[in-house]
Amino acid sequence: MAKKKVLRKKKVKRKTDAKPSGASSPAPKKRTKRKKSSASGPAHAASQIDAFASKVAAAALKGEDPSLDIPTRALSNVAFNARSRIIEMGDATQTRSFFNLGQAKKFMQTTLVGAGCRELLRQEKTTSIRDLFYHCKHTIEGTRENTFDEQTESDVVIEDLEVALESLREELGLFAEPKGALVGPMVIEDKGDTIDLTRMGSGGYAVPSIVEEDVIRIKKCTADFVVLIEKGAVWRRFNEDRFWKRHNCVIVHGGGQPPRGVRRLLWRLHHEHGLPVFVLVDNDPWGYYIYSVVKQGSISLAFESQRMAVPDAKFIGMSSFDAEKFDIPDAVTIRVNERDVRRAKEIRGYPWFQKKEWQKEIDRMLKLGVKLELEALSSKDFSFITETYLPRKLRDEDWLD
Amino acid sequence: MAKKKVLRKKKVKRKTDAKPSGASSPAPKKRTKRKKSSASGPAHAASQIDAFASKVAAAALKGEDPSLDIPTRALSNVAFNARSRIIEMGDATQTRSFFNLGQAKKFMQTTLVGAGCRELLRQEKTTSIRDLFYHCKHTIEGTRENTFDEQTESDVVIEDLEVALESLREELGLFAEPKGALVGPMVIEDKGDTIDLTRMGSGGYAVPSIVEEDVIRIKKCTADFVVLIEKGAVWRRFNEDRFWKRHNCVIVHGGGQPPRGVRRLLWRLHHEHGLPVFVLVDNDPWGYYIYSVVKQGSISLAFESQRMAVPDAKFIGMSSFDAEKFDIPDAVTIRVNERDVRRAKEIRGYPWFQKKEWQKEIDRMLKLGVKLELEALSSKDFSFITETYLPRKLRDEDWLD
Repeated sequence: MAKKKVLRKKKVKRKTDAKPSGASSPAPKKRTKRKKSSASGPAHAASQIDAFASKVAAAALKGEDPSLDIPTRALSNVAFNARSRIIEMGDATQTRSFFNLGQAKKFMQTTLVGAGCRELLRQEKTTSIRDLFYHCKHTIEGTRENTFDEQTESDVVIEDLEVALESLREELGLFAEPKGALVGPMVIEDKGDTIDLTRMGSGGYAVPSIVEEDVIRIKKCTADFVVLIEKGAVWRRFNEDRFWKRHNCVIVHGGGQPPRGVRRLLWRLHHEHGLPVFVLVDNDPWGYYIYSVVKQGSISLAFESQRMAVPDAKFIGMSSFDAEKFDIPDAVTIRVNERDVRRAKEIRGYPWFQKKEWQKEIDRMLKLGVKLELEALSSKDFSFITETYLPRKLRDEDWLD
Repeated sequence: MAKKKVLRKKKVKRKTDAKPSGASSPAPKKRTKRKKSSASGPAHAASQIDAFASKVAAAALKGEDPSLDIPTRALSNVAFNARSRIIEMGDATQTRSFFNLGQAKKFMQTTLVGAGCRELLRQEKTTSIRDLFYHCKHTIEGTRENTFDEQTESDVVIEDLEVALESLREELGLFAEPKGALVGPMVIEDKGDTIDLTRMGSGGYAVPSIVEEDVIRIKKCTADFVVLIEKGAVWRRFNEDRFWKRHNCVIVHGGGQPPRGVRRLLWRLHHEHGLPVFVLVDNDPWGYYIYSVVKQGSISLAFESQRMAVPDAKFIGMSSFDAEKFDIPDAVTIRVNERDVRRAKEIRGYPWFQKKEWQKEIDRMLKLGVKLELEALSSKDFSFITETYLPRKLRDEDWLD
């Protein structure tokens, strides 16, 4: 299926070969939902790269200008889909052609990164995007020109390839610095090791960057829901107090903005195991934003939304109304600064924050002029957050959607 | 024992009560090694706090000026002990007295943080230093004055208490944001869960911040050595290639400068289980410094050196001589910048880098004018680092001490 789509695009693009300046095709007025390819995983990614490479080779053999079609990753090609409730990319693409002076280097870089990923998949290995940068970096023979000078160059090309190949970077064998930990009533198989996630001690299971089915198999999951906690330190309080046991849930943190591995695992727990996802963050604009990325995806990585976003995720706190509800002393609130106010107003304007309750929530923060960290609850008692705050929020269904 | 020492200091300090300006006693010319208290753990910490509090209470009841003696944490009271090969604190202390206008607030903060830690220990809980800040923060009744305004205030007091009570913050129930992962032929008991560290999948065991004997019991360890790897992404390559299995070792990373939990665990593996420790870092001044902190401890946290430093740790790479030895292409070296040069020269001047081999190593970097990241080895092959580089370095005993 996915292969067919690439082939179809190929035909369309042939026509634009006539314009060697490489003008991008205009963004379609009506954005259509990008189809999720039915296949996925490293094998799929490898065949996608092969198809990509064959096209280049075929053009070269015919004496034509080899070119690649890369979906446009720009705000102009991104929109919030109100029906699916995620941030999606449109269908606009750009041609990257070899015989165009302004595109030749990028073209070369794209094929190099593609070849690097293909080699990685052949060896059945995974690596970091920094490592791939080094793998692809060399001085072109007979010149003093490097294929890449900075990692930013290869990072951009990786994102291009993710979209063009309809494969997450994890499927291409690439991972980010892992962050985040998890415990709860689950048994997984990770690279052949069976791991009982109720027996992970104080540290928890370090969530790897690649959590796709071929690496992490969820063998058993009897939890009723998942709580994503913004900070590792607060997560630790939940683990120490055995919150996950008392409430039969999975608790996970992502050390701030959760990394891709954590987001993808949330997605899997929600979509494959039907677990509701609750997000527990600081009451500040950055907390709202963490929630928003988990729920709708982000603008810069819109092409991943379908594989990452959990549109049903619920914001369980902290809310601007909690200080009053839970009688939090003023001394532990923090005055918002200019940056907070600007960010809160920006977020209030996002299409996906237009629900009345959300407008109230953000207006309340702006009106009170204070923000609140999760740790502020410790002014009442070290375990107030696990014994009183969250149980009461859950019982009263006191969350935002 | 430890209690006695505190009592001894108490007597000495009584004399300085005559100087309410709180002048610090002069640093002793000859620095004596701070004795390691024989007792340790939370029970020890609790009794230390009680002794501290009793002293304050006794003075108050007698109508005297309550005061606390805090060892001086300043460069003037820190030195490299060439015999024990760690950075140590001297015996200078400062008096913090309640009836001194310039010290009253700090005195109050010190007792508050002490009380907070005592409460934490009573509840047998642990928490983050941020959480403790919130726990101790309130508006003083009848005033508009807060006990603490910024976390930096309570952080400093925590370090003071660590030294004064001769207890690591972990023993006071405080932890830092956990970072780092580990795998290898070990079985540990973590909070009652038995964990086989050969069966941790791709993510590894997330090293918690508190790894003291009462939390983490090392039940079995058959490894021959430990490799501390600077970066999580490179550690992952080692894990994926099962380096730990092929070389019967423990591999651990600390996500850059290793956090206290990782350092303390290295200490335990070295001192309790006799494992040699090898440090594998980028070839740049920051890599040298990571090695140095693991080995000798740091100036700012000199009071922890005895419990954290591994003076026998070996620097296995990357060395400034490796580019030539391993035929690394120029394209993947990075030109040093001004900051690198300044830092390298600083490090070259440290007393603990005076060995001839180290001077050569640093001089070579300065002469070549380039630095090298671990990932640069991937320009040869993704697994060059695990299959060729490190095995050869180990075989040839090609390391620095």
